[in-house]
Amino acid sequence: MTTNKPAFEFWFDFTSTYSFLASQRIVELAAKAGAPITWRPFLLGVVLRECGWDGPPIANNPRKGAYMWRDLERQARQRGHGFTKPSNFPRHSVLANRVALIAANEGWAESFVPRTFAVNFIDDLEIAEPEVLARIIAACGHDPDAVLARAQSEDNKAALKANTDEASARGIFGAPSFLIGNELFWGDDRLEAALEWWRAA
Amino acid sequence: MTTNKPAFEFWFDFTSTYSFLASQRIVELAAKAGAPITWRPFLLGVVLRECGWDGPPIANNPRKGAYMWRDLERQARQRGHGFTKPSNFPRHSVLANRVALIAANEGWAESFVPRTFAVNFIDDLEIAEPEVLARIIAACGHDPDAVLARAQSEDNKAALKANTDEASARGIFGAPSFLIGNELFWGDDRLEAALEWWRAA
Repeated sequence: MTTNKPAFEFWFDFTSTYSFLASQRIVELAAKAGAPITWRPFLLGVVLRECGWDGPPIANNPRKGAYMWRDLERQARQRGHGFTKPSNFPRHSVLANRVALIAANEGWAESFVPRTFAVNFIDDLEIAEPEVLARIIAACGHDPDAVLARAQSEDNKAALKANTDEASARGIFGAPSFLIGNELFWGDDRLEAALEWWRAA
Repeated sequence: MTTNKPAFEFWFDFTSTYSFLASQRIVELAAKAGAPITWRPFLLGVVLRECGWDGPPIANNPRKGAYMWRDLERQARQRGHGFTKPSNFPRHSVLANRVALIAANEGWAESFVPRTFAVNFIDDLEIAEPEVLARIIAACGHDPDAVLARAQSEDNKAALKANTDEASARGIFGAPSFLIGNELFWGDDRLEAALEWWRAA
């Protein structure tokens, strides 16, 4: 049987606070909806700069920043998982995003992505450091050195850049974003609506 | 019996698209939660300028703007009410906000506020025009000329300005916002969480 159902695409960057929230529940919710997740890491900073923002949207807005940290704390508590305001924010996420792309291509993103978000936003560890990523890769049952080498290959670097270009071309302006064909949903708050759109597609 | 329960405050401006969404469901949801609504109109444009934004947050971000209109259309359809992208956006809302403050003080905001949002975002009529507001006031069972005169009094103008100053002082950076004491919730998506916070307070 063939199906014309479009993919359910999860676009994220490991710097993104609300992508963290989505990452801690998307596997369970997508499984309930019967939706296979297409994991799409991209470089949020590049997209934000294209949209005219220099740095995270809260950078020049202390009120919104204070609100965001409180909101994340409340949301995490309500969902029964941890949250720690990272001691370094935003963390450099390029290497982690590159590993996520390898994991997506090799079929183990479901294991790597939620863990890596948790390491950044619950454990407050420096995901820019290869040693930190190596421990996560090992916990996923893969060879850290080999994976990091593949992540840093020219082909993989170009593929992450291509993802980022595609994000822009398809109208993405923030993270997390969910795409079902041309239909864009932005924000952790739209995860349920995006899954419902996919179900009905 | 006295209660120390804090008020459930709904902060809005008639220019605000997501305040429109909240306005079409807050009366029903607050009633279900047993929460009396304290209606708090304020001047969103003033607050946004204080936060460093010149104009609505979508003004310089065409991708986010395109998304917002599509998102509003989808959300309204899902909730079974209309939505029309206003032919003039953002509309001047000062007079409507002043009337809302009169309505709040006199106990008929529950009738005036949802109607006025619907006139802007469903009927696409010019809520900056006194004649348009007069029809809404009449539909609420009040004398349009008398209400508009009270709305334009110096005392009422000062009271709306005081509301706006209070919004800033309490950390508001957008609309809709919900306050329960010092606990701030931002966005139509947080209406349920805000009511739950009030219930548990």
